[in-house]
Amino acid sequence: MGVKDDEMAYRPLLRQEWREGILEGSDDDAVAVEAPLQIRVNGAPVAVVMRTPGHDEYLGLGMLLAEGAIETLDDVRSIRHCDEVEDERSEGNVLQVVVPEHRVAAIERMRRTNLTGSSCGVCGRTSIDDLLATRHSLADRCEMIAPGVIEGAAQALSTAQPTFVRTGGVHGVGLFTHEGELLRVFEDVGRHNAVDKALGWRLKHGVTSGALLMVSGRVSFEIVQKAMMSGVPIVAAVSAPTSLAVELATACGMTLACFVRGSRICVYAGAERLSDSSARTR
Amino acid sequence: MGVKDDEMAYRPLLRQEWREGILEGSDDDAVAVEAPLQIRVNGAPVAVVMRTPGHDEYLGLGMLLAEGAIETLDDVRSIRHCDEVEDERSEGNVLQVVVPEHRVAAIERMRRTNLTGSSCGVCGRTSIDDLLATRHSLADRCEMIAPGVIEGAAQALSTAQPTFVRTGGVHGVGLFTHEGELLRVFEDVGRHNAVDKALGWRLKHGVTSGALLMVSGRVSFEIVQKAMMSGVPIVAAVSAPTSLAVELATACGMTLACFVRGSRICVYAGAERLSDSSARTR
Repeated sequence: MGVKDDEMAYRPLLRQEWREGILEGSDDDAVAVEAPLQIRVNGAPVAVVMRTPGHDEYLGLGMLLAEGAIETLDDVRSIRHCDEVEDERSEGNVLQVVVPEHRVAAIERMRRTNLTGSSCGVCGRTSIDDLLATRHSLADRCEMIAPGVIEGAAQALSTAQPTFVRTGGVHGVGLFTHEGELLRVFEDVGRHNAVDKALGWRLKHGVTSGALLMVSGRVSFEIVQKAMMSGVPIVAAVSAPTSLAVELATACGMTLACFVRGSRICVYAGAERLSDSSARTR
Repeated sequence: MGVKDDEMAYRPLLRQEWREGILEGSDDDAVAVEAPLQIRVNGAPVAVVMRTPGHDEYLGLGMLLAEGAIETLDDVRSIRHCDEVEDERSEGNVLQVVVPEHRVAAIERMRRTNLTGSSCGVCGRTSIDDLLATRHSLADRCEMIAPGVIEGAAQALSTAQPTFVRTGGVHGVGLFTHEGELLRVFEDVGRHNAVDKALGWRLKHGVTSGALLMVSGRVSFEIVQKAMMSGVPIVAAVSAPTSLAVELATACGMTLACFVRGSRICVYAGAERLSDSSARTR
């Protein structure tokens, strides 16, 4: 996966433009590609996501990790696009995952969850209370982070989104070290997919130094949940969090920094990780 | 449903703010509320969505309509919050819908779809091809619309989002007549939910004059699908469309206008509905 994956993210498109009373054609426009990906595990479909094609292996790994269906890379025997699809439109849009026998029960739980949870990967109260009970505490992940690193990450992300520049239609997610080194950026029409790709990439390549997940938009419960399941202790965002995102981040010991704009950062959880020699609390 | 519903959309929250080297407390902040809603039809759970509480009846109606589980208001015997929930956290978060016997097969299809489609309400290729086959053609919905009406709708929506002003954390969706009258605005942490609420409100109150759906963000396949299933012929947005949104809008005869900013409108489908005495095509 490489340049080709990124080239699948957008395509040229004819559109017309209305400007000051005139409708004119435009031929240099591009639109972000959205297409369904079916994920099959041991032959059975477990999910269909509308995503931007490319980096599907990372998307699948990240999603399975976030949903508790796998815990390590050893829980995946193989993951690749299906060679034998029924028609042209399905080509490249079916991902086959094979897991060992001892993960089948976890996959079955994920299937059942999807039955009752259509848009969030959680199946209501019980799961949320389970998650809020901090099964995956990040409190021992004590990386400190300088506010300047978070500010710098927001700036770095904003200049590393080629598909957004062309289309204005995708979210960006960057994975950084706690010292501010940019490890990798992923873009997708779905915020959750971009997070899954970043965290799947982190799992695949064993990049435990990825301590800061920077997202270009807002932070929902599910984004905090995904970071928590991956052991990422710091989530930052250009825009707002939701109530449940703050609740889960607080419960699991995550640092959640939002509205990162210029030299201003709003900290909703885990402010104790922020450290700067010039810092004063009042 | 009324003022109380809107008051449930946000709540006060303590946060800290890092600004120019100082970490200070802030006590006048608010955050958009996100909570799971379980939707049960004839006693069986069919979906859980993470949504902003309030106007849940409209959300349920809009979602059932979009998924083809109901077609008219006559297909719903009753829809209300469950009185007998198991615990405090579930109060107000379980919606019970009762449909007549002849809709049970459609509900069962929706349940099966949710099993294989975790985030989009479609179950892959077959459904998408079905939808692209324009089962619900809007070509006969020949309302013309002046570009100035679309520009005005974007401005009207931007000044009618009280929860966004307080939290920065929700999407807004407005329903307008083709003459530009604002009928109703809904806000939600989920874009799709805000659309469901607007279209559910339209169904509940028989507001067939709601011809223009204006959304504050981007337009995905699913938003076009929902508008199509509701018979809304014009969708406009402040931001970008996806490839599949353009494809479906074109196939079903919808007008899709995006990047509505100032006096500029990018038209991706159905430009023939745009009519302005000052218009010239070149």
